[in-house]
Parts: sequence; structure tokens; C-alpha cells
Amino acid sequence: MSTAVIMAGGVGTRFWPASRRSLPKQFLPFGDEDKSLLRITADRIAPVVGEENVICIGSEQHRELLNQHVPSATVFFEPVGRNTAPPVLLAALQVDPSDVLVVLCADHYIADEDRFREVVQLGIEHAEKNDDLITMGITPNSPHTGYGYIRVAEGSSGDVMPVSEFVEKPDLETAVRYLDQGGYYWNSGMFIWRAEVILAAFEKYMPELYELMLPLKGKGAESQLMSKVFERISPESIDYGILEKADNVVTVPSGDIGWSDVGSWDAWAKLLPADESGNVLRGDAHVLDCSNSIVSSDSLYIAAVGVSDLAIIESAGALVVVPRSRVEEIKKVVDHLKDSERDDIL
Amino acid sequence: MSTAVIMAGGVGTRFWPASRRSLPKQFLPFGDEDKSLLRITADRIAPVVGEENVICIGSEQHRELLNQHVPSATVFFEPVGRNTAPPVLLAALQVDPSDVLVVLCADHYIADEDRFREVVQLGIEHAEKNDDLITMGITPNSPHTGYGYIRVAEGSSGDVMPVSEFVEKPDLETAVRYLDQGGYYWNSGMFIWRAEVILAAFEKYMPELYELMLPLKGKGAESQLMSKVFERISPESIDYGILEKADNVVTVPSGDIGWSDVGSWDAWAKLLPADESGNVLRGDAHVLDCSNSIVSSDSLYIAAVGVSDLAIIESAGALVVVPRSRVEEIKKVVDHLKDSERDDIL
Repeated sequence: MSTAVIMAGGVGTRFWPASRRSLPKQFLPFGDEDKSLLRITADRIAPVVGEENVICIGSEQHRELLNQHVPSATVFFEPVGRNTAPPVLLAALQVDPSDVLVVLCADHYIADEDRFREVVQLGIEHAEKNDDLITMGITPNSPHTGYGYIRVAEGSSGDVMPVSEFVEKPDLETAVRYLDQGGYYWNSGMFIWRAEVILAAFEKYMPELYELMLPLKGKGAESQLMSKVFERISPESIDYGILEKADNVVTVPSGDIGWSDVGSWDAWAKLLPADESGNVLRGDAHVLDCSNSIVSSDSLYIAAVGVSDLAIIESAGALVVVPRSRVEEIKKVVDHLKDSERDDIL
Repeated sequence: MSTAVIMAGGVGTRFWPASRRSLPKQFLPFGDEDKSLLRITADRIAPVVGEENVICIGSEQHRELLNQHVPSATVFFEPVGRNTAPPVLLAALQVDPSDVLVVLCADHYIADEDRFREVVQLGIEHAEKNDDLITMGITPNSPHTGYGYIRVAEGSSGDVMPVSEFVEKPDLETAVRYLDQGGYYWNSGMFIWRAEVILAAFEKYMPELYELMLPLKGKGAESQLMSKVFERISPESIDYGILEKADNVVTVPSGDIGWSDVGSWDAWAKLLPADESGNVLRGDAHVLDCSNSIVSSDSLYIAAVGVSDLAIIESAGALVVVPRSRVEEIKKVVDHLKDSERDDIL
């Protein structure tokens, strides 16, 4: 049996002003149908594992949203966010040790869902027969500097390849070399393994966390112990805590599935239809002699005249105007708002 | 005796989205005290003519605003706008023929109000003794291409100079030549004359209009005849209708009074204090690594990051983003809104 685990605890600020503390990116409407990325993620994996075998782990703070967006999933509510290792372990402690877990991020986009499911199926089959930790490596189609990379063992090929190294986000020159050279994949943050295999890895590489969380085994979504346990946990990522240390990590290359982590307004706009001048418009927006710009309105009428490569985003009483090439700096605005205690628009 | 006539019938669209059909530029708050340009205009001239001797002529549509902004003035409400000649004539028909009229625009800015009043006083004294049509010529301090120019007679000098020609808005090369050469003044749209002198000019150069409006003589602000008369009037400017034709036109040069017609957001921003990077901010606005930009908010929080020479203006449900050098094109947005029948934001 296999179970999907959707990690939905993100509190990303890169989509401010649309994303807020009370409404992070995974809950935002996306694309034509205005389904959230979380809902899209759940719907995408359901045909593989069965709708009833979806676990979603998010923040207690978003309890209502989580129940709304994935009504058929079993939802666990983290009292506080502690990065990705704790929720992965929490899920592994709830299922049968022989179950295969498909760990997914709640806020990624995948264009070719059929191909994605084929890759997941390959991974599940490998996980059933092997004591491996499987990462889904995204076959790169550009020298992207915003992703971490996975290097597979020299000369390896096929559907499943041993991983020799995780590497940090490269500079452009390095990323170009990775692309030319081959053997490098984007680290998607999607993983497949049997519960007993990842539990063994936690026991070995993160024994303190393992001991701390063991009392939650089989306790289900509404355990009274959650708060007590989570408060004592130190934040750690599954990548750093286990994957970069373990020697049984393999990757299943995705091929061309059209994956994006939708990491910024710029990435978001690249996934949506543009007008003939490359402008992506949403809501009550009008452009005049503009090119390659993003204009997103929730409630205002927005007119942009004579601008290029600019992002203009309005939502719920706030607006940001920033060149597309500098959308990362929206974080600085959010930091400023935190410093100014502007809770009204955070 | 002298009477000020404030022409407040403008329906300018260059200040959209702040200015609307229901709230043209002359009623918008301006500067620190948030007084309207109309109110500033009335307060500026009151010490010269006396508060009780101010006539204001605006649109019936703005009756309430006019009464609010200039409560002590005698206000005439035009049923329809017919350019500047009809209201000038209307005012001249209400006062004693020997009275001096000081005709002012409701939406101009003047930095040095004392010097302005001195110039007006000079003009009044000249008008009392001479049958001249006096224009206030603004001594240019830059080769501005947005204003019409007045050329005074060759070799003339002093406080009052005969005008030899009105010239259209020049190109930059021509404007530079005007500035170098001297003898050219900006046409401010401010005039001084005795009522009987301008009435004689109307009778001579615009006899049809004169005949049409004569029944309004002395009828006061609430004449029942206004609608009937104004409907039959063809729009005409006082400049084209009289001043460019008359041979008794003189100019009183203003000297350095810091005049601006506040003709655009760019001109508006130039009159306000800027931060050390040249940004002019109004309302709940924040800039990060921006320069020479305008950010004006009525109700939103606006953050601008990494932009230069950009105007970002929000008001009452609408927003425009446009380079400062292209603010004239806001008119195109307004035209588009008219075509789209977007009366909600016009």
C-alpha cells in the first residue's frame, strides 16, 4: 500500500502581498480554475495512491483552510513549524511500516501530470523492493540557479540511479556546466520510501528527534501530545538531517514533466498564458504599450502604461511594484513590515 | 474697485485616478495642509480684492464642491462647459463697468504669493488708467515646451509691455531660443482688465457670443436664463476669441514667482518635498532602493522596490503605473475607460 504525504506547512513570504501569514502560497488560487496549488497537488496524486490515502501536514494556524482545501485527506496540524524533518517523521509514524510513503510539497506546479504519476509509480515499485531513500530528481532544462542539485554516481543511467552528492544552489557558470556535463538533477523536495526505511534512517541520523517523536506513533491527527512534543523539537530539514548523510539515497529522474517550485511571482507568471507582448494579466488590469510585465489585481482597477519587465501586484489592501528581475526583494518589504509591526498587512 | 474671477470649470483628466468627473484637479488636496488648489487660489487673491469680491465660476455638476471649497465667494454654475470665453464674459456682465477684473485659474500653484500680489497690484493700477487687456506673463526659468508663450514688442521693457504675438507650445529647440533671446513669457491664463474694456472687446471680436449672453447682465448667480443661454453657446477660449486678435494687449511680467500650472503628476511632484533620492511619497507608501519616483496612496499600503522615474498613483479603487516621462499618456487610459464605459472609475 502507498500513502501520499503532502507537506503544507510553508509560510512563504515571496508571494506577498497575495500571500499573508493567514494565507500562504499553497492556499492561493492558481491558474484558470483558481484551484489552490495544495488542492492541485492532492488531486494530482490521488489516482496513484487513492484519495483516502492522502495525509496532509500543515500548521495549526491554517486548520480551517487545510480542511477546506483537502477535505478528503487526513490532516495533521503542527502546533509550530519545525522545518521538514518532523512532519516526515510524523507521517512515517502513523502508517504500517511496510507502506510506501510518497512525500510531496504542497506548492509546486507540474505541467505533465501523467508523466509525473508514471515516475511516482516507478519510484513506488522500487521502494517496495529496495531499502532505498528515493528522491525525485527533476531533469533540468535550463541552468537554473534557484534550485539545489543532486549529482548521481558517475556513469549511472536508467530509471533509478544512486546519488553521490547534494549540491547547493550554484552560480550561473556552475549551473551551465552541470547542464552540459549531465548527471545533475534539480532537487524537487519530493521523496519516496517505505516507512520502515525512513524510520530506520531517523533512528540512525536523527536519534534525538526520533526519540522525541516516538510517543506520537499511531496516535493520529488529534493527539493531545502534539503540542508538548513539537515545542521541544529543534527545526531541521529532511535534506540536511538525513538525505545528505545517508548512503542509500537514489534518484528517479523525472524526465520532462514541466516542474516548477513556483518560487516567485516571476516563476508564477511563467506558468500562465501571456498576451502577445509577454504580459501576464490577472483581474481588472489593463496595459498600454507594456511588455513582459505582470499585473495582478484582486480588487483595484490597475492601468500600466509604458513599462517593461515590471511586476505590479495588488491584494487585500497592499500593493508592490518591483522589476521582475528583483521579485526576490519582496522579502525585504515583508521584513520591513515585520519591523514596523504592520500586522494589518502581513 | 476690483473683483477676482476664478475660473473653476476644468474637468482635467491628467490627474486620474485621483481626479474624476466628480472631483477634478482644482478640488484635490494639495501639499501639506491638504487645501485644494481652488481654495489656495481664493485665499491667495483675497488680500488684494477683499474676500467678498471673489467670483468663482464652475460647473453645475460640482455645485456642492464649489460651495464647500470657496464658501465666501459668489459662485456661478455653468450648466455646461463652453471653454473660457463665456465665463469671462459672464463675470464682466455682473460687475460695475469701471471695476477691474482679475481673472485667475483655479488650479495653478504659485510659490511666492507676496510677489504675485505685487504683480497683480501693478496690473490693477495699469488697468484703472488704461484701456488695455493685461495678461500676466510668467518670466520663464526653463525652456518649457508645455506652455504657450507671449512675445512682447521688440525692445520693450518695464512693468507693462505691449504684446506682439501669442505663440503655440514650442519644440525644445525653439523654447531654448526663446529663453536665450528674451522677450518671451509663459502665457499663464491670468488676466487683468476693466469690465468695460473686455466687454468692448467681446462686442468687437465675439459679437455673437456678446449678443447671446447680454441678457445675463446683472442677473446674478442663480439666473433662470443660464441653461437656455449656455446651451446655445459654442465653446471658445478667451485666448483665441479675443487676445490673439486684439491690439490693446499688454503683459505684466511676473518675475520669479514660482508659478506652475500643475499640469501633470510630474509637475505636481516637482512642487512637493522629496526624499534624499528624489522620491515624492504621499500616504501609506514605502520605497526601497527607488529614485526620482512618485508614490501616492489614498487607501492602500504601497511598496515600491528598485524602480526609478516611475509614477505609482492609487486613488478610490484605481491605480496607474507609468514612467514620469510619460504621465501625459494617462489621458489614453482615461479614453480607454470612456470607450469601455467604466463609469465606476471615471
